[in-house]
Amino acid sequence: MRVCGIDCGTETTGFGVVEWDDRHPSPALVWLDAGGISPSRKSHLPDRLATIHTELTGLLGRWRPDVVAVEEVFYSVNAKSAIRLGHVRGVALLAAATAGIPVAEYAPLTIKSTVTGYGLAAKQQVQFMVARLLHLASAPEPADAADALAIAICHIHHAQTLAVQEARAI
Amino acid sequence: MRVCGIDCGTETTGFGVVEWDDRHPSPALVWLDAGGISPSRKSHLPDRLATIHTELTGLLGRWRPDVVAVEEVFYSVNAKSAIRLGHVRGVALLAAATAGIPVAEYAPLTIKSTVTGYGLAAKQQVQFMVARLLHLASAPEPADAADALAIAICHIHHAQTLAVQEARAI
Repeated sequence: MRVCGIDCGTETTGFGVVEWDDRHPSPALVWLDAGGISPSRKSHLPDRLATIHTELTGLLGRWRPDVVAVEEVFYSVNAKSAIRLGHVRGVALLAAATAGIPVAEYAPLTIKSTVTGYGLAAKQQVQFMVARLLHLASAPEPADAADALAIAICHIHHAQTLAVQEARAI
Repeated sequence: MRVCGIDCGTETTGFGVVEWDDRHPSPALVWLDAGGISPSRKSHLPDRLATIHTELTGLLGRWRPDVVAVEEVFYSVNAKSAIRLGHVRGVALLAAATAGIPVAEYAPLTIKSTVTGYGLAAKQQVQFMVARLLHLASAPEPADAADALAIAICHIHHAQTLAVQEARAI
């Protein structure tokens, strides 16, 4: 199973592609790609959104993930930040829909507790655990890329749990 | 000059295409197209956004407006509504950017006062004046289409004022 996590942000949108490789006796999480999309602040908003959409569409076309995973919206932000984040999130969800890839959403608490065991973990703890789980020598940069990888790992974990539960039910 | 007004909404996104025809001795506003895009509420959000994007892209390709005009964001809405509106707005701005059409933004007060002479005019007054200005027999339906036409008319009015000022400055 291949999952692309997207961490939408108004300055930088992180992405991370992770595969759950279970063809071997000891299945493992495999890092495939990660990074951040930071359109020029000097560009107009429509052009910044076009850059994000083009980059994400290219990414999804290259890696053909089975699922796109995003963070559920965090509603305590103020209206101004919310609408700016909404612009980016709308464009990311559109890229997934156009590529025909289903979207899964996870609450920030669920993502953090899946990756670190603690729902209120600090950003550094998430980066540290993402690097460990993916056997990386150092934490992925930018931090938005680590967050996106955490979202992807969260989906893989939950999909596996679901598979085990379904197997037990048979 | 041809302008496409877009009134972004989470349920219905209105659009209205208006032309300022100054080839004749008495220049006039000409209605070209208007309507609303209401994706099925049963669809998932990414698919609803894809429907809006496809419809708007088709509209802009058909009419090739010189400008896309939208309402400035109204920040007093709550964060939940703001992010939902942001999703739609992001997709609309993307459609304009992809079509290479510049985007102009106007505050709700400016739009209402341009069309009705009163910044706090009721929805019905806006509909009534849009119908009068465009010589329509009845108010355009849905109301979102009338709002989109009002945004387009607002842009034409301001572009004309600007042209007059520039002419005087020469």
